[in-house]
Amino acid sequence: MTVPAALPLPAPVPAETPAIAPLRDFVVAFGTLLDQSPDEARIREEGSALLARLVARDDWLPEAFAAPHPTYYQQYLLHADSTERFSIVSFVWGPGQKTPIHDHTVWGLIGMLRGAEYNQPFALDAAGRPVPSGDPDRLEPGAVAAVSPTIGDLHRVSNAFDDRVSISIHVYGANIGGVHRHTYPEDGPRKPFVSGYSNTTLPNLWDRSKEGRRSA
Amino acid sequence: MTVPAALPLPAPVPAETPAIAPLRDFVVAFGTLLDQSPDEARIREEGSALLARLVARDDWLPEAFAAPHPTYYQQYLLHADSTERFSIVSFVWGPGQKTPIHDHTVWGLIGMLRGAEYNQPFALDAAGRPVPSGDPDRLEPGAVAAVSPTIGDLHRVSNAFDDRVSISIHVYGANIGGVHRHTYPEDGPRKPFVSGYSNTTLPNLWDRSKEGRRSA
Ligand SMILES: [Fe+3]
Ligand SMILES: [Fe+3]
Ligand SMILES: [Mg+2]
Repeated sequence: MTVPAALPLPAPVPAETPAIAPLRDFVVAFGTLLDQSPDEARIREEGSALLARLVARDDWLPEAFAAPHPTYYQQYLLHADSTERFSIVSFVWGPGQKTPIHDHTVWGLIGMLRGAEYNQPFALDAAGRPVPSGDPDRLEPGAVAAVSPTIGDLHRVSNAFDDRVSISIHVYGANIGGVHRHTYPEDGPRKPFVSGYSNTTLPNLWDRSKEGRRSA
Repeated sequence: MTVPAALPLPAPVPAETPAIAPLRDFVVAFGTLLDQSPDEARIREEGSALLARLVARDDWLPEAFAAPHPTYYQQYLLHADSTERFSIVSFVWGPGQKTPIHDHTVWGLIGMLRGAEYNQPFALDAAGRPVPSGDPDRLEPGAVAAVSPTIGDLHRVSNAFDDRVSISIHVYGANIGGVHRHTYPEDGPRKPFVSGYSNTTLPNLWDRSKEGRRSA
């Protein structure tokens, strides 16, 4: 549609319809869950069910938030709640990339979207050094895992592949990029850690004006 | 900071510190206000005070969300609440641009950030045609106005300038881009209207990792 500049008409909507509705539906459902002030166990249970539904399909994440970096794993914020009750992050692992051993200080849910990752829990020994706690879990697409100070908060996450990208979608009980937490070097004391985010722009989940339309 | 690819370190944060903290603070304060389930009059009163504080300074809006279009006024979504209780939009008027006469169906607050605009209220006559209701208000930077079905929901907004850009920050009691509402042509029946948004990416307000830092 093209109209002369003088006509006070709203702009035409972009022709392309983003497939991002599943993420929007997840945000609304998660916010509605938290509106009920559930305890952490219920958040983990019902939140995991919502996240499992989100990562049951891999057709909605925009490419800009699925792009790996040659050196660093990427943490793309996808949505943050108005009062920072929760945040949603796309973690993109390049081949062979892994996190340091770290904590969260809040509940976290991990939903595997693409590829696979190893999730190795850790506990602290008497000297405060991190030691592996059981075997690593291998997460395949569709799988969901949880962390929290209640059930075990320390882990290291690694791309299961050294020749391809893996992506998982994480949900946390805070604006995780701003949380003051820690990494745990194997040979020294824990270090203060504020992760930040890799992205300066977020996807616009909220354009419902094209719902029900098919672009030509 | 550069580290070898093998080290499992988080990525360094971007060097530049965006000045977007005032918008983040506004979002958190507005969400906290709505958590108290205020009635519309209180939202207008306390929400207007919050918005007045936000538009009292013009140093925080990223350029990408302040860019005019040669033909159409732009509606850049800046934030949407998880359960769509509210949304925040940057309206960018090119020289001489104006909206159609339109309604909202929900409360709306308008905070003037840059330039100036005319806000002309309308009412419907017995035949359902829009007629001006009083004189237009000229909004100067820092001013806040309100609309709603309770206090008057129809208006037309125009850039007060024909040679420069004007920008106002709007807050609505819904995900306004998806609301089914109406425009009111002066010579015919009202028309269905879903505005959508001009942008596919939102600013990332949420990176608190650089708070207190000054980049070199
Ligand atoms: Fe983690
Ligand atoms: Fe309006
Ligand atoms: Mg609430």
